[in-house]
Amino acid sequence: MSPFPVLLGNAATHIDAELSRILDRETDRGTPPRLVSAMRHAVLGGGKRFRPFLTLQSAALFGVEPSFAQTAACAVELIHCYSLVHDDLPCMDNDELRRGRPTVWKAYDEWTAVLAGDALQSLAFEILSAPTGHDNPTIRAELVLALSCAGGAGGMVGGQILDLEADKLQVGPHGDIAHITRLQAMKTGKLIAVACELGAILGKASPEDVKALKIYGDALGFAFQISDDLLDAEGQTEEVGKATGKDAAAGKATLVSLFGVTEARHHLDQAIDQAIAALERFSARTQPLIDAANYMGRRTH
Amino acid sequence: MSPFPVLLGNAATHIDAELSRILDRETDRGTPPRLVSAMRHAVLGGGKRFRPFLTLQSAALFGVEPSFAQTAACAVELIHCYSLVHDDLPCMDNDELRRGRPTVWKAYDEWTAVLAGDALQSLAFEILSAPTGHDNPTIRAELVLALSCAGGAGGMVGGQILDLEADKLQVGPHGDIAHITRLQAMKTGKLIAVACELGAILGKASPEDVKALKIYGDALGFAFQISDDLLDAEGQTEEVGKATGKDAAAGKATLVSLFGVTEARHHLDQAIDQAIAALERFSARTQPLIDAANYMGRRTH
Repeated sequence: MSPFPVLLGNAATHIDAELSRILDRETDRGTPPRLVSAMRHAVLGGGKRFRPFLTLQSAALFGVEPSFAQTAACAVELIHCYSLVHDDLPCMDNDELRRGRPTVWKAYDEWTAVLAGDALQSLAFEILSAPTGHDNPTIRAELVLALSCAGGAGGMVGGQILDLEADKLQVGPHGDIAHITRLQAMKTGKLIAVACELGAILGKASPEDVKALKIYGDALGFAFQISDDLLDAEGQTEEVGKATGKDAAAGKATLVSLFGVTEARHHLDQAIDQAIAALERFSARTQPLIDAANYMGRRTH
Repeated sequence: MSPFPVLLGNAATHIDAELSRILDRETDRGTPPRLVSAMRHAVLGGGKRFRPFLTLQSAALFGVEPSFAQTAACAVELIHCYSLVHDDLPCMDNDELRRGRPTVWKAYDEWTAVLAGDALQSLAFEILSAPTGHDNPTIRAELVLALSCAGGAGGMVGGQILDLEADKLQVGPHGDIAHITRLQAMKTGKLIAVACELGAILGKASPEDVKALKIYGDALGFAFQISDDLLDAEGQTEEVGKATGKDAAAGKATLVSLFGVTEARHHLDQAIDQAIAALERFSARTQPLIDAANYMGRRTH
């Protein structure tokens, strides 16, 4: 059994190749070169491809045809990438660097970044709904429904609104753990959970299996956020690969600042135990998802 | 038979009510109030609802169940509305007023406008893919595919990139009729054409019928753009309801500036004739679509 980072890296290589192929088609169909270039910049700039990994491994639990799993995995990543492009805009987080490269608005300009993000969102739903997404159209429609709900107003976009309200307008009960937990569950948790859910949909999983994967995904999303906050609070800039201590410097309330490091780590461990426990009902092929959960507890970057 | 503006107005009343109902659900599911409010501002601020009208009337050719036609019509309008919210941003057209009211970024702020647009796009695909979109999942998946293609990089978003490249970067062969025609076909034509196509998809139309409606929709989209340019060149500000002469003042190449008013009007008439001719194969219920085409040739606002 390969160690988890190797497994994740191998999956990322496959996903990168598939994403590149999907974006090549834009050129073939006459999409303006500036737009194709900005979309490629947004999508193909590295990234761990953690969400697509979850889709691939969740789908593998049910023996899903790999090409369908890959398409769904790419759709989740396209939504993630579009959200990063928009989050980096000057009117949002005003970030000039991502993964060591200029952000899309910095490399091109703001209007190109807004439109590239818009096009990536459309593309996610296009690849899911096309016949190559799955040979069963009911499943294709279910994939679109799940991803649009998780990514939309009641999910990722809604969470981003709550986050920016807190940052820019000092709206929201600052320091309220329930509020921050909800905000983070929407902003990052729902997309991580739906990455797992898409695998279950592809596999026509039973309601019980869907529920188990949902518990896994929700717990993993929560763990992801705490581990991110812990990295920011404790990590060394060189190891994490981005500036650390940003939250504290900005006076931002996080689960770590509210719980303290020790209790936050305890919550992280609990979430990982909960995620792994949810996998018990599956008899085989759960090891990569177990490893993914354990990895979350030991992340150094 | 009611005159066309009355028919259009009645359809708009129904669409407004349905859009309002769809947005009410956001509150019910806990979407942050600021986001719901911005989405409502973007969607419920008037508008002729011309695209949804085309979907309703195209669907009526095939006797489609009205609730399915209304959902698809609303999805097209949500895509149209999200594109307006993003187009109005300071980094794009920098418009502060739309239909006599502050634009979303002006009424709220830029980040809220970016995110409200993003959420409206997700919502369009959500309502199409949900079981209420159609009882046949193959049709639901086809609706999503058609709308995501028309609205995405190869359609509306791509056209907007070409338009802004010409405006802001002086890219593109200025004064090249083929380039401007393609730009406008992508930017506005594809969404108008897909509004008709969704009706055909809902009606499980034969390939020949789909093709006929596509010709109608493409011709109508072209007519829409020329009539817009003619209004800008010839209309009185009071009658048109927005500033006229903007294109000429900005030195912007339009089909009217390139063809001249007389030839542009001739192209408009030709497009309308072509649109109406495409409807000949349908035996009944074509009058509203014929009226819509004729209306396009006589628009005063």
